[in-house]
Amino acid sequence: MTTTRTGQPFDRAVLESLMRRRLFYTPAFEIYGGVSGLYDYGPPGCGLQANIIDTWRKHFVLEEDMLEVDCTMLTPAEVLKTSGHVDKFADWMCKDPKTGEIFRADHLVEEVLEARLKGDKEARGVKVEDKDEEDAKKKKKKVKDIKAVKLDDAVVQEYEEILAKIDNYNGEELGQLMAKHEIKNPATGGSLSPPMAFNLMFQTSIGPSSNYPGYLRPETAQGQFLTFQKLLEFNQGSMPFASASIGKSFRNEISPRSGLLRVREFLMAEIEHFVDPEGGKKHPRFSEVADVELELLNREVQLAGKTHVERVPIAQAVAKGTVDNETLGYFLARIQLFLERLGVDKTKLRFRQHMLNEMAHYATDCWDAELLTSYGWIECVGCADRSAYDLSVHAKKTGAPLVVREKRAEPLRVEEFAVEIDKKKFGPRFKKDGKSVEAAIEALTQDVREKLSLELKEKGKVTLDVEGVGDGKVEVGGDLLTIEKRTRVEHTREYIPNVIEPSFGIGRILYSLIEHCFWTRPEEEARGVISLPPPIAPTKVLLVPLSNHPDFTPQIKQLSSRLRSLGVSSRVDASGASIGKRYARNDELGTPLGITVDFQSVKDGSVTLRERDCMRQVRASADEVLEAVRRLVEGTESWADVEGRLPRFEGQEAD
Amino acid sequence: MTTTRTGQPFDRAVLESLMRRRLFYTPAFEIYGGVSGLYDYGPPGCGLQANIIDTWRKHFVLEEDMLEVDCTMLTPAEVLKTSGHVDKFADWMCKDPKTGEIFRADHLVEEVLEARLKGDKEARGVKVEDKDEEDAKKKKKKVKDIKAVKLDDAVVQEYEEILAKIDNYNGEELGQLMAKHEIKNPATGGSLSPPMAFNLMFQTSIGPSSNYPGYLRPETAQGQFLTFQKLLEFNQGSMPFASASIGKSFRNEISPRSGLLRVREFLMAEIEHFVDPEGGKKHPRFSEVADVELELLNREVQLAGKTHVERVPIAQAVAKGTVDNETLGYFLARIQLFLERLGVDKTKLRFRQHMLNEMAHYATDCWDAELLTSYGWIECVGCADRSAYDLSVHAKKTGAPLVVREKRAEPLRVEEFAVEIDKKKFGPRFKKDGKSVEAAIEALTQDVREKLSLELKEKGKVTLDVEGVGDGKVEVGGDLLTIEKRTRVEHTREYIPNVIEPSFGIGRILYSLIEHCFWTRPEEEARGVISLPPPIAPTKVLLVPLSNHPDFTPQIKQLSSRLRSLGVSSRVDASGASIGKRYARNDELGTPLGITVDFQSVKDGSVTLRERDCMRQVRASADEVLEAVRRLVEGTESWADVEGRLPRFEGQEAD
Repeated sequence: MTTTRTGQPFDRAVLESLMRRRLFYTPAFEIYGGVSGLYDYGPPGCGLQANIIDTWRKHFVLEEDMLEVDCTMLTPAEVLKTSGHVDKFADWMCKDPKTGEIFRADHLVEEVLEARLKGDKEARGVKVEDKDEEDAKKKKKKVKDIKAVKLDDAVVQEYEEILAKIDNYNGEELGQLMAKHEIKNPATGGSLSPPMAFNLMFQTSIGPSSNYPGYLRPETAQGQFLTFQKLLEFNQGSMPFASASIGKSFRNEISPRSGLLRVREFLMAEIEHFVDPEGGKKHPRFSEVADVELELLNREVQLAGKTHVERVPIAQAVAKGTVDNETLGYFLARIQLFLERLGVDKTKLRFRQHMLNEMAHYATDCWDAELLTSYGWIECVGCADRSAYDLSVHAKKTGAPLVVREKRAEPLRVEEFAVEIDKKKFGPRFKKDGKSVEAAIEALTQDVREKLSLELKEKGKVTLDVEGVGDGKVEVGGDLLTIEKRTRVEHTREYIPNVIEPSFGIGRILYSLIEHCFWTRPEEEARGVISLPPPIAPTKVLLVPLSNHPDFTPQIKQLSSRLRSLGVSSRVDASGASIGKRYARNDELGTPLGITVDFQSVKDGSVTLRERDCMRQVRASADEVLEAVRRLVEGTESWADVEGRLPRFEGQEAD
Repeated sequence: MTTTRTGQPFDRAVLESLMRRRLFYTPAFEIYGGVSGLYDYGPPGCGLQANIIDTWRKHFVLEEDMLEVDCTMLTPAEVLKTSGHVDKFADWMCKDPKTGEIFRADHLVEEVLEARLKGDKEARGVKVEDKDEEDAKKKKKKVKDIKAVKLDDAVVQEYEEILAKIDNYNGEELGQLMAKHEIKNPATGGSLSPPMAFNLMFQTSIGPSSNYPGYLRPETAQGQFLTFQKLLEFNQGSMPFASASIGKSFRNEISPRSGLLRVREFLMAEIEHFVDPEGGKKHPRFSEVADVELELLNREVQLAGKTHVERVPIAQAVAKGTVDNETLGYFLARIQLFLERLGVDKTKLRFRQHMLNEMAHYATDCWDAELLTSYGWIECVGCADRSAYDLSVHAKKTGAPLVVREKRAEPLRVEEFAVEIDKKKFGPRFKKDGKSVEAAIEALTQDVREKLSLELKEKGKVTLDVEGVGDGKVEVGGDLLTIEKRTRVEHTREYIPNVIEPSFGIGRILYSLIEHCFWTRPEEEARGVISLPPPIAPTKVLLVPLSNHPDFTPQIKQLSSRLRSLGVSSRVDASGASIGKRYARNDELGTPLGITVDFQSVKDGSVTLRERDCMRQVRASADEVLEAVRRLVEGTESWADVEGRLPRFEGQEAD
């Protein structure tokens, strides 16, 4: 169980009710019965999302002159076939042939075994938390009741081992587990079909004929890779550089759950940093983050079945080889700084390294920034070294050169065995086979060339294997062919860059951030507060006239217009509710500041400024208060600074 | 043919080459051969798009406290069935059964007739522009060559009349035109199938079973309508209010053409303004825009086959009834102000009213903001009064109340004929038919009730039509039924709001804006300039060290970092190219300002500031120049103001 920033036990039901009541987000198409895994963001959610994106753009794109691109979501099948998604982007599903119900295999195994372990504890008289069963229903779990059945100690241990590795089984292994442990449809006891791969991409058809299949992209990355050569040119050929993209991606989850954490349509922000694979993947600005301390949960610790993290400066982690290289390390540190800037709870952030069998086969190293929520540790940002994989496969498939060509500072001298063919004699001698023989000669490796050069010297001729010509053996004489050691000078170096990819799930960050910022006033438990930092909060200022007396209107209007011209979002609440109630409503919306216009304001133009978390107020002229608001929203001043400058006010909220 | 702002003939090929070279946008998946109708935005296009969106948000959402929402693109089929899109969102296509080629019927008729008219002109010895044929190939037109064949005068007139109404034919009519005028596959002369409806939505399947069809949304509007009740509640029940949404929508065009103007995936920004249908749809801020003058092309003028526009203040157009109501008029004016703020050429903007058969059947009035481009007048913003249609159909389908309930200031007294049934006697008398008879009585209209009340008084009984009961006639006596005139007092008013919908095609605006801002320096034709206003330009400042001498680096770095903290985007160009070449590159990118660091800068800290359009420079301290940059980018100062304050500088660019 997690706790709030004030140490209270976190109650998800209370937060979810608040989210819904204040329209942060809401199930999509609810009046049509809803579609699981699809959510709409209402005004506060939408504003929060925009501020997270804005901060991301400043923190990454502007700060490092990244090249932002906006590529299409519709993607031809061929592209995703090359990238491997058509074949491998799948989860395992089982069907109940009788009821037609479909289960995600790993989730089902997990739930059934967890339920049996709980049943065992009950049977052994160990207290099981009541909340779990309530939760089971809410989280749409398949297993509805826990039966108190004692298990053998060995079985308990086996179950626990399976659960620890549940993410690492393939379909066949899941099928074996289900057979061995008799895992069936929990509702009916019916047998299930063996796990089948279910591709998670949404398929569609592009154009009027039905022979051009396409998918909705599962990530923004592929579009960036395909544009690599144009981006390199745009960057005037200079390396390293990064592209960046913000946009929706799609994943047709078998059985979405956990609210915003596992959805079918989601906003991503992805960076593809292209780097020379030679020279240890250094980063020019690594020194700026060298001392940033990260909580790392590395591969070895996980292999040992442990979860303790190590707090180390990133420079040390890179030096020790825990993190593979400087560029990867640079981004891990930058990711942490970004998340802290948003306002996540630093004690609920860790970086977990992927296990070897968890990474794509081409990845060199991969770390997830995980945030602790009531659902456990949630992957919110992935940071992978994808090596040269993607650029290589697309180049190979299309023949397009996705490469960097650099002039060498020093020309490279290469000693090699060169072949030379006397073309005048070659044609007449081999006739229609000429091309095949020539190709076979050109394709000879250096080792073979070395051997043949000796043979040529000794015997005056060589015998080559040429498929499809005569009996497959062809004799070529020294009159037609020369093989000699020569020196070639390379002035240009050509290489395929490696890619470091920090990939952000904005919805997951948004939800986790809200959990981290949520608490309730100890004096009044029903009063929730979302303590988003001022630069991140959707609305910055609530404007409150003391009552709906018409005398207050001109000042409220003027403040509203002045805030607008400062670029600070505000809302007026001129409803009849008490000041206290109106502030309470806005605490729930995460609005950090409130300005009240009262009878004193009408007399002398002064207004009060209230801070959400401490609920204290200051009173000053409109000019002074607006200047304080501007600085608080920019993040250049804290509330303590403001209280130090402006006189304290005690008042209105009592009611 | 259109002309640039400097009066030069506009050359689309030159602009397109610039767009591609500077990576404003580029065909998507080009290394895979491309997919027509899909484009990627590179860094300048992406930046420009972000600034247009940002301006939109400030101009509409923040200015009017609109409720922004972010709804999903994936949409269940049922929702779009209700909205009418499954049945009606289609174009007409013809197939060549031999070659399998598919044509969009209206486009084919248009192209073939246009080609014949050109051939006729040629045969008559009238000069036809050479460019047209070149264009035909580039625009992927189906008709490749023009044959010089003279037509009868009557035929010419008939063709011209057809072309004037080409958007208004349905499939059957298009089929008749094709038969009558022998329109076939232009490449082979083969006959085509009659036009069939092709639905323009991309279909997919949601979830693992294949029985939950969905579509990618064709507009953002439906998501906003479905959330109406929650938004009204969020707005504390207060009317009128508007929701707004920015996001991608999709349209599976049969045969996309015209670059960014007709694409399959596009960014929209839509507003749904909900208004009380009673009281003439007034707008509280109408007076603020009353004097804004618009160029209106109304329905009557178009019906007469003319295209002359009328320049009138919006207040006058609403008063005369040309524009249906104040709220619609308010938004037309606001749309114009928005487009002007972006920098569109005011002389290339008009508002065209939809013809009656062009509007959806439920629409009350509809105007398009059209921008003149080399493709003709292009619809960039639509502004429709959708009446209560959408909310009504969704409410009817789902049973959800999408209504406003308002307390009446004065209770409403309604005189009406009320029916009362003696339920005790009713059941035993009619047994299983009781419910049907009761429902039939409740459903009686006021007119019928009045008639029956007399009948009841005269005969002591009435005879009712009740389908499915006995022979369909049921006699009910006065002992069971009373019908009397009574007064009912209504304290609450319930109504379905009407919707005024300004809907912006961001890609179309972006492309048209670029055409409006593009020109070439008269002294050097190959030098293109994109004169985007500073607040809209993707990058605001180019930082140029005079050469790559290391002495310049610290100042460039410092300026870069100071600009970043001002929130002003800049790029450094430290390439070896001459100052003139570097500025020319950035003229093409639309970068309005350039700061040069030269040897004088190293001595006294002064730098020069260059303006893109006039190419003049001023020289001042870094502080003064940065302050000028800030004001220019905010739009609070013009270049003339800056030249008035800071000393002129003549220099570097000569090379």
